[in-house]
Amino acid sequence: MSTLQQITPWQRVTEELTAIVGKGSVITDVAEALVYECDGLSMYRQRPKLVVLPQTTAQVSAILKVCDRYRIPFVARGSGTGLSGGALPHTEGILIVTSRMHQILDIDLANQQVVVQPGVINAWVTQAVADEGFYYAPDPSSQIICSIGGNVAENSGGVHCLKYGVTTNHVLGLTVVLPNGEIVELGGAAPEMPGYDLMGVFVGSEGTLGIATEIRLRILKQAEAIAVLLADFTTIEAAGETVSAIIRAGIIPAGMEIMDNLSINAVEDVVATNCYPRDAGAVLLVEVDGLDAEVPILQERVTRICYEQGARHVTVATEAEDRLRLWKGRKAAFAAAGRLSPNYFVQDGVIPRSQLATVLKEIAQLSQRSGYRIANVFHAGDGNLHPLILYDQAVPGALAEVEALGGEILKLCVRLGGSISGEHGIGSDKACFMSEMFSPADLETMQQVRSAFDPKRLANPEKVFPTPRTCGEAAHQLKDFPNIEAF
Amino acid sequence: MSTLQQITPWQRVTEELTAIVGKGSVITDVAEALVYECDGLSMYRQRPKLVVLPQTTAQVSAILKVCDRYRIPFVARGSGTGLSGGALPHTEGILIVTSRMHQILDIDLANQQVVVQPGVINAWVTQAVADEGFYYAPDPSSQIICSIGGNVAENSGGVHCLKYGVTTNHVLGLTVVLPNGEIVELGGAAPEMPGYDLMGVFVGSEGTLGIATEIRLRILKQAEAIAVLLADFTTIEAAGETVSAIIRAGIIPAGMEIMDNLSINAVEDVVATNCYPRDAGAVLLVEVDGLDAEVPILQERVTRICYEQGARHVTVATEAEDRLRLWKGRKAAFAAAGRLSPNYFVQDGVIPRSQLATVLKEIAQLSQRSGYRIANVFHAGDGNLHPLILYDQAVPGALAEVEALGGEILKLCVRLGGSISGEHGIGSDKACFMSEMFSPADLETMQQVRSAFDPKRLANPEKVFPTPRTCGEAAHQLKDFPNIEAF
Repeated sequence: MSTLQQITPWQRVTEELTAIVGKGSVITDVAEALVYECDGLSMYRQRPKLVVLPQTTAQVSAILKVCDRYRIPFVARGSGTGLSGGALPHTEGILIVTSRMHQILDIDLANQQVVVQPGVINAWVTQAVADEGFYYAPDPSSQIICSIGGNVAENSGGVHCLKYGVTTNHVLGLTVVLPNGEIVELGGAAPEMPGYDLMGVFVGSEGTLGIATEIRLRILKQAEAIAVLLADFTTIEAAGETVSAIIRAGIIPAGMEIMDNLSINAVEDVVATNCYPRDAGAVLLVEVDGLDAEVPILQERVTRICYEQGARHVTVATEAEDRLRLWKGRKAAFAAAGRLSPNYFVQDGVIPRSQLATVLKEIAQLSQRSGYRIANVFHAGDGNLHPLILYDQAVPGALAEVEALGGEILKLCVRLGGSISGEHGIGSDKACFMSEMFSPADLETMQQVRSAFDPKRLANPEKVFPTPRTCGEAAHQLKDFPNIEAF
Repeated sequence: MSTLQQITPWQRVTEELTAIVGKGSVITDVAEALVYECDGLSMYRQRPKLVVLPQTTAQVSAILKVCDRYRIPFVARGSGTGLSGGALPHTEGILIVTSRMHQILDIDLANQQVVVQPGVINAWVTQAVADEGFYYAPDPSSQIICSIGGNVAENSGGVHCLKYGVTTNHVLGLTVVLPNGEIVELGGAAPEMPGYDLMGVFVGSEGTLGIATEIRLRILKQAEAIAVLLADFTTIEAAGETVSAIIRAGIIPAGMEIMDNLSINAVEDVVATNCYPRDAGAVLLVEVDGLDAEVPILQERVTRICYEQGARHVTVATEAEDRLRLWKGRKAAFAAAGRLSPNYFVQDGVIPRSQLATVLKEIAQLSQRSGYRIANVFHAGDGNLHPLILYDQAVPGALAEVEALGGEILKLCVRLGGSISGEHGIGSDKACFMSEMFSPADLETMQQVRSAFDPKRLANPEKVFPTPRTCGEAAHQLKDFPNIEAF
């Protein structure tokens, strides 16, 4: 017997991948791989067979050809800041980490476009063009750490997506490696492309259709002037009604955020902004931007509407430093929630703006019935809720109860004509709620499209779509992948 | 032999369709069907086997189930104003006309949404909400006659899409009948929907994925103020450079249109606006909108930029009547071109804004070499060209030469980093140019997605994608459909 036959199949795969990316870019060591076992939804962890860190489109293509040949599932991971478990590794698969694909490949100011690799951090894009007066609009809270590739996978939003849209509105073209290793171009530099808008399908597909290796982004000119308004209300319903009144008046602020009393007190405990009144039922933050001549008019109109809707006080900040001070509490809201209780669970749902008051009342009732406190922080302008359920993971059964409570909130959103995810994606966390929103025919159509890209179901399997496993039943999905040890 | 067996298969299909939609809604008479033999690209005509005019989603579903059972190709048609032959009937198929699906089903002002049937005319949407201060943004030139269903199929633009985007940016949800008759919901009322953005794929798919029977549109608040500026330049290059300079200054006008000297003289001959100087190399129309306080500043800045770029004169109109007078010539441009020569062919291509001067120079050279005059009218802000090639169809060989010239212009657009279609679609006219833009792998991915919706290839076959037939070779594609007479 030759020694060759003693090499296990995974050793062979490791050798092939090492030949593609080099020795330092394949991680098989358990300790080294530990950091990749979860994403931002840290209560779930899974260990991949190995981790590979490519640097180029050609390397990603070669890696996926290996996966295709051996039928190995793969999961792509950017910075791992996702909140729905979309980058949770597959225990029988490869984790492809894009953090070494961090080049800004092209900056075309004349056509307001930037081309980046997927591992480029969101905030770097703005940094690269800020001196010339441009910026990249989508700004998830994690923007100083999250990757553009991850933003594309999740179709990330941010506090300014009310006026400026989400990631899909700012991606012009993608170089994509399909699960079989083939390289395709979706979209492109031209403002409108013929054929099917497959770029639009890819953005938000949560890694289930392939890996984007070059991303062409639209950049915008910075606004001349910005004003931030902070209005405090005795009830959260009044704050919600003010949001509708502002939109009804034909004003589209850059962002509108609401925080409830529990969140206000949490942030004041932690960062002491001294701007958010502790006895307020809710505060509403409104950012308006535009021309120097336009912003004062907008801020005056918004102020008037806030008072008409019962605001006790409205603070206006126009200088950068003052604006940051007003935003500070909102930016610290999630971190501050961590001080309120040992653990918290961020839910992400959407409702039509007109249902804001109704949904808040029902969430309050759910909180009371379940005995779990819920802090509400949300992108009010587009009806994107982020209820934070406070709990203690050390209490037996608490996690299961909190998950059930989170599920109730999602079903409530759907019942009111909304959606089970605003910007955090479905991932592994919400796959079992997809059937709340979509009919079997709707889901089947999506699966057909998925098969068009990935007939072998190797790209981020068991995510997004409901399977017995994700709905809490037996984990028999794994048998769909021939165990590579059998090769 | 019973008389039953003497019924031909098409008679049987006619009976089945009549049972679905009623007697007056199935047209088999050649004279009556004549009007449906072509769309706005009138040089190509084909007669369908029969025409059916449904009124409801259920009827469309039942019709497509008949098509699926007998494997009959079908083409959907709105108002037939398309310019790329997308609604050209199939000689062995059924034409499904949506003109009787003309109900506005819901108006939800609070959430700024309107739900319509596909046969609703574009301009009706704005008419229905104008009194409340809202409007529907996409405004193709044909807006008083074209249907929303057709707009969805073609992802139509208009003169205001620079600032407000094209149809896909204003569609929120679709009820779609798949080619097998199944009814699915794509997108919906919520601002963001999880799962794949199949609504985005459907918009612009030119009738190849199914038929949209209910369309949920976003409506916008009317701007407080609007100003239109008309600047005249001695050269078209200067007008093009001004467009870039305006964008570079961070201004996004609602629309920017350029007309060249030939177009100017054509419209002055026909509508005598007396605003467009006959000796100008080009005129640039710029529309700015916004707050009452914002628009005067924008118009002042645009005026200054125009003069800096060498404008001879800038006229500004703020009152509705004066604005219409400035727009009048642009709106009449296509009609006026009909006075310049017996026939004209409108091309539709896109280039990056920065290549405007280059492409205009090369189009002038193509015109000179070919001997055909070309009038240039275009949405300059987004680089969407509409060269009008003037010719006389009565001259033998002229049409073929003009088509070849149109093709050269498209290849030029692609060479400069642009696209073969801005807003008129691919249809039957441009399918053979798709391979200029897309690699075989790109096109194969689109075909796979098409198969996910339409595995039997019954929905508007022979359109969009290159086939031997559309590239001028033998018309052997038809044999893919078993002749129904064989049933």
